[in-house]
Amino acid sequence: MLVTRTVEELSEALASMELSLGNDGALVPTMGALHEGHGALMRVARQSNAWVAATIFVNPLQFNRPDDLARYPRREGEDFLLLQEHGVDLVFAPSPEVVFPLGWVAPELDLDGLDLLWEGAFRPGHFKGVATVVNRLLDLIPCANLYMGQKDYQQCLVVERLLCLRKAMLVQLGPALVKVPTVRDGDGLALSSRNLLLAPDQLERAKGIARTWSWMKAHGQGLQPEALVEGALERLTAEGLRNEYLVFVRDGSLEPWKRGDGAPRALYAGWLDEVRLIDNESLAIA
Amino acid sequence: MLVTRTVEELSEALASMELSLGNDGALVPTMGALHEGHGALMRVARQSNAWVAATIFVNPLQFNRPDDLARYPRREGEDFLLLQEHGVDLVFAPSPEVVFPLGWVAPELDLDGLDLLWEGAFRPGHFKGVATVVNRLLDLIPCANLYMGQKDYQQCLVVERLLCLRKAMLVQLGPALVKVPTVRDGDGLALSSRNLLLAPDQLERAKGIARTWSWMKAHGQGLQPEALVEGALERLTAEGLRNEYLVFVRDGSLEPWKRGDGAPRALYAGWLDEVRLIDNESLAIA
Repeated sequence: MLVTRTVEELSEALASMELSLGNDGALVPTMGALHEGHGALMRVARQSNAWVAATIFVNPLQFNRPDDLARYPRREGEDFLLLQEHGVDLVFAPSPEVVFPLGWVAPELDLDGLDLLWEGAFRPGHFKGVATVVNRLLDLIPCANLYMGQKDYQQCLVVERLLCLRKAMLVQLGPALVKVPTVRDGDGLALSSRNLLLAPDQLERAKGIARTWSWMKAHGQGLQPEALVEGALERLTAEGLRNEYLVFVRDGSLEPWKRGDGAPRALYAGWLDEVRLIDNESLAIA
Repeated sequence: MLVTRTVEELSEALASMELSLGNDGALVPTMGALHEGHGALMRVARQSNAWVAATIFVNPLQFNRPDDLARYPRREGEDFLLLQEHGVDLVFAPSPEVVFPLGWVAPELDLDGLDLLWEGAFRPGHFKGVATVVNRLLDLIPCANLYMGQKDYQQCLVVERLLCLRKAMLVQLGPALVKVPTVRDGDGLALSSRNLLLAPDQLERAKGIARTWSWMKAHGQGLQPEALVEGALERLTAEGLRNEYLVFVRDGSLEPWKRGDGAPRALYAGWLDEVRLIDNESLAIA
């Protein structure tokens, strides 16, 4: 596995791989603190690409709270071992100064309002930061396929919008976004780097989200959607979560769900003490 | 390779290895930013031990300057890959709070003045910090053999003294210190994590130390020791180094060298711009 930290090392490594950049290959962008959700991204990427590159970069632009950035888990040693285990060809683990050098100007990206709803409303600037760093990484690492987890549902929509913009600006034809299903533990808890911040008793309460999805699935046929959401929010509160939002959207979009749209996608965000968690699930109701 | 970050994880890992702790096994303590000098320690350790543990811990106690601590190179990802490559069984990479928890009291260690001369004089408190952390790591990881590089000549003497103290205090019989010869690049530059802080032109000037050793070896028979040291210091200054000290000691000690003591060990410390470098070499003179 080639390890790179600077743009110069990255360029040299990409050249040495003697591969047709942009026409094949996968990019798996991560913020490190890797778990089996990332493992799934790498496995899927490895199966259908000539080469796989991964990035480990805790992107300061996408944090709207400095304390959240400061305590975001970092465990680069374990991360590198996991990347190697998954047969990743190239890792790019730059410092913020390498990704956003002095004098570098972020291009304006019109995200069509996808960055303003739900997660975007509760974390102002978050998705602009995400789009900016992904845009920058794609400039540095041309590839055919980009891999991201479904757990960050809205992030996937924002990045799909970014890829459309890049096509429209003729920056490059690709890549295509491959959305990989959320990986959950045995109790249904969605894997997340932030779970590392939870003590055992907090982890137990976090599983209340999964228990609520189960309850919603069990009662989806019997209750009106409004009653279903209301009941779910009550259960989540009882589980010890401070809810931010629980909303139904048309699957694959941020449009409000209405009857006839098929199974809605439920999006949830809430706080477990001082740790913010998000999750989403497809619910067959009505 | 087992990765541990906390004392609890470490204890569990050591127990799981089902090995006779303290009676066999090697400890290779490092501050990370590993290079082939560390590689040599691991290779030697691997050859003659049932198990090999390595620690990666930038020990704040041994830095007498906060700026030196702040910019000490950190590259844990590469380090973990190298440890795995060398067949290390267990890595312990703790945070400072894990090694020196609140309320923990450093035991008084009488280092017999070995901590006050040369390096100790120019870096007040340095060797107390080294002895304290090695003492603590040996409490956490009982082993038969401890591996350190000869490049840190005085550090080896301080740690040997620590091991005597531990025997005297009946903390444990072992370990024995295995001093591994300094690894040098093709130009004779001693490998050091701090070399990562040098730009290419600075690296070139740093090789002036190796050139000076060569010059001293070439003139060791012809010049009086005083003239040899004086000539060497002039050459080092001409190479662009700011000398701190160059001294001859009886090999294996810090005693001043005198004729009849055999080949002296020359100890050097100096600054290359803002980076401090040390080296030592055995010189067959007179």
